[in-house]
Amino acid sequence: MTATTDEKLATAADVSLALTSDSKPALSKEEQLRLIRVNLAEILNPEIIEKVIDEGRHPRIYWGTATTGRPHCGYFVPAMKIGQLLAAGCHVTILLADIHGFLDNLKAPIELVNYRATYYKFCVTEILKAVGVPTDKLEFVLGSSFQKSPEYVMDVYKLCSVVSEHDAKKAGAEVVKQSDNAPLSGLLYPILQVLDEEYLKVDAQFGGVDQRKLFAAAKDWLPRLGYRERAHLMNPMVPGLQGSKMSSSDPDSKIDLLDAPEVVTKKIKKAEAAPKVAEGNGLLAFTEFVLLPAASLSGTGEFIVERERDGLEPLVYKDGAQMKSDYENDILSPQLLKPAITKALNGLLAPIQAAFQASKEWQEITLKAYPPEEKKKKEKKVKNKGSRYPGGGAPPRTGRRLWRSRLPHNRRVGVAAGVPVLESLVGSFHCSLAPLGGRGNTLSAFREHALVWERAW
Amino acid sequence: MTATTDEKLATAADVSLALTSDSKPALSKEEQLRLIRVNLAEILNPEIIEKVIDEGRHPRIYWGTATTGRPHCGYFVPAMKIGQLLAAGCHVTILLADIHGFLDNLKAPIELVNYRATYYKFCVTEILKAVGVPTDKLEFVLGSSFQKSPEYVMDVYKLCSVVSEHDAKKAGAEVVKQSDNAPLSGLLYPILQVLDEEYLKVDAQFGGVDQRKLFAAAKDWLPRLGYRERAHLMNPMVPGLQGSKMSSSDPDSKIDLLDAPEVVTKKIKKAEAAPKVAEGNGLLAFTEFVLLPAASLSGTGEFIVERERDGLEPLVYKDGAQMKSDYENDILSPQLLKPAITKALNGLLAPIQAAFQASKEWQEITLKAYPPEEKKKKEKKVKNKGSRYPGGGAPPRTGRRLWRSRLPHNRRVGVAAGVPVLESLVGSFHCSLAPLGGRGNTLSAFREHALVWERAW
Repeated sequence: MTATTDEKLATAADVSLALTSDSKPALSKEEQLRLIRVNLAEILNPEIIEKVIDEGRHPRIYWGTATTGRPHCGYFVPAMKIGQLLAAGCHVTILLADIHGFLDNLKAPIELVNYRATYYKFCVTEILKAVGVPTDKLEFVLGSSFQKSPEYVMDVYKLCSVVSEHDAKKAGAEVVKQSDNAPLSGLLYPILQVLDEEYLKVDAQFGGVDQRKLFAAAKDWLPRLGYRERAHLMNPMVPGLQGSKMSSSDPDSKIDLLDAPEVVTKKIKKAEAAPKVAEGNGLLAFTEFVLLPAASLSGTGEFIVERERDGLEPLVYKDGAQMKSDYENDILSPQLLKPAITKALNGLLAPIQAAFQASKEWQEITLKAYPPEEKKKKEKKVKNKGSRYPGGGAPPRTGRRLWRSRLPHNRRVGVAAGVPVLESLVGSFHCSLAPLGGRGNTLSAFREHALVWERAW
Repeated sequence: MTATTDEKLATAADVSLALTSDSKPALSKEEQLRLIRVNLAEILNPEIIEKVIDEGRHPRIYWGTATTGRPHCGYFVPAMKIGQLLAAGCHVTILLADIHGFLDNLKAPIELVNYRATYYKFCVTEILKAVGVPTDKLEFVLGSSFQKSPEYVMDVYKLCSVVSEHDAKKAGAEVVKQSDNAPLSGLLYPILQVLDEEYLKVDAQFGGVDQRKLFAAAKDWLPRLGYRERAHLMNPMVPGLQGSKMSSSDPDSKIDLLDAPEVVTKKIKKAEAAPKVAEGNGLLAFTEFVLLPAASLSGTGEFIVERERDGLEPLVYKDGAQMKSDYENDILSPQLLKPAITKALNGLLAPIQAAFQASKEWQEITLKAYPPEEKKKKEKKVKNKGSRYPGGGAPPRTGRRLWRSRLPHNRRVGVAAGVPVLESLVGSFHCSLAPLGGRGNTLSAFREHALVWERAW
């Protein structure tokens, strides 16, 4: 099913209602289902969730996030949906998918992936607190805590024996990084994600619509091992805050949860936002999917755009429809919208950053998860497509540093930032000397001068 | 390196010498290496084994066998080599690869694979006893006893993340059953086999030359996880006892270890053996690689071909070269050779069958490993290419019986024997209704009348 506009608009008010009444709200079945459905692009097998509610149980739903890069403001989008699910009385499990982090083309180095999982847990918890969501039915599970158990592993082997290479590839096509020389682990990625539904004992999995093929595979594959089929909830793909031309090689394209207010101001100032074009507009989408619901939770339910400079009354929005209409008619210009978003977002980030400042543990884990020497590289990393949820990050220079003469053939290596001709190569890639030879000056330079390092195991 | 003719000829005498002297023979390094090398087609990195001997240790070598079908007389060939390795003072581990049994396109059903592993252990032990090999340095390990451990599994995930789909496919190309719709497990097969070298703590792996690509991959892959490279010993591919046109759909193409003497006589009588053609001749190869060495172990060292019927003295062979020469010159005709082989083989099988008769445990496990209702199907199973070692078998009818109306789409199903038009389909295959529709009468008949069953999990 596809969420109707009505359902979308209901979001903010509904969550507010549910959350302000009680941490265990006595909602009617219809109210619960409406809260579960709002803002979703699609649900597969909603009857599975209805049945659970009919039986008087709390639907168990999981959302997985591969602990690869660093959670950024894009995470507010699923966090809002998770808030709605919790408000609807669901039990929500957040899978910190550390093993998936390196299965997906080694996006996260094995030795850092666990620290990052802890960092993610701090972030997601504080995001939910920042939007006022009660977390008593929220549970965090680390992927490696059960994905190495003998029972799970036998099921990996079994599922691999009844799923074809072709189907595994198709299931992960939009989620796992695709390349000409893809590692085998990319085919295991969907196998594990499907089994996680059984092992986390959930009734449904929640993710973005980019997960659709994988979710369809889950419906098909689990019964092959005698396990029951689950429901699947899908968020629409919301354009990035910096507009649809988001690029991970552009350091300004993501706003980190710990970015200082002035950095946020600068990044939003640089954000792409064509006047009068509401479609694909990341600023409007962020307002609709995050700031409006967040405003509802904080009580006012309003998103306010000041027009003092023009000597006009502020624009006050309670839903996305009016805002989009005003934007298309140039009543709400990008110049007006940007400062309003900056103010609201900094307001949302303030309690998260205060929690970070107050927690020695969080600060320490951050240093371990993202060693300082990586900082520079992270800003320059090579393009990296998709992940379980927006994230990704350049590999750190944790391995053996290699010199030209020791450049290994057909091995994964990393390239350090700082060598101008190699900026486009910074990150990690599979090294094959043969093709390198034929790709002109840049790659010759790589062979001659690059600081490359081999990944540490 | 390739074994020279001299080395091949040395086999029988060497083993005899080594085994009759002591169970822990005090052989010189050169004698040990010669025993290790005899009859092999190739060794990769022999220096690894030499170094172990120089250090005064017993080289640890493993041979894996996927416990799929039923061990047959083809198993005498690796068993003889294992005998030579034991005689050379090596510690030999036989991996009963139960998990590999179903990873390879579900050749062995999961629920039977463990019983079959026990059956294999009985068989291999008795084969070695039958050829007089001391087994004090022989160890059996069940694959599932360590291939589900957390450490092993993390290494599976890690290795999958540094090995490409392409390379995994290539490594298993000659070992894992290939098909258009191959299960993903076929790509895991080489990953596990390579890791087994590390987890079995061996210095070398032994197998047929069909394993060459996989062995080359092992040399390349293990160091990626920081593990050391192993040596690899390869047996030549010996033609089947029934000639090179061995077909698994022909019930006479394999001689079971428990076949009665009259069955052996009949099967060898039917064996293909063109007069004067020694090349690719399974009867000569079996004599050279099994019967001559076995005769050496029993003391005489002679393979005798009676010619009473023609009123001539028997032909007496001590090596394969003279025998091949006589065969090419028609001095040794197929008519003379077949009864001689029958007699020698039945002599070899007699103690194995006596051990079977004496062991209630072995008899009971046989019934569990190969349920009687499978008997008929096994004789008619669909062609099945390659395995870790010759074996393979049709899946048993252990699952849910399905009728036409419940024929599942895109699922693995089995077809029972007994419906004449479907004889060619008997076995197990991936069911896709769409292509079935287009393949004429036989497949229409399948859809209309076949007794199909879904595999049980």
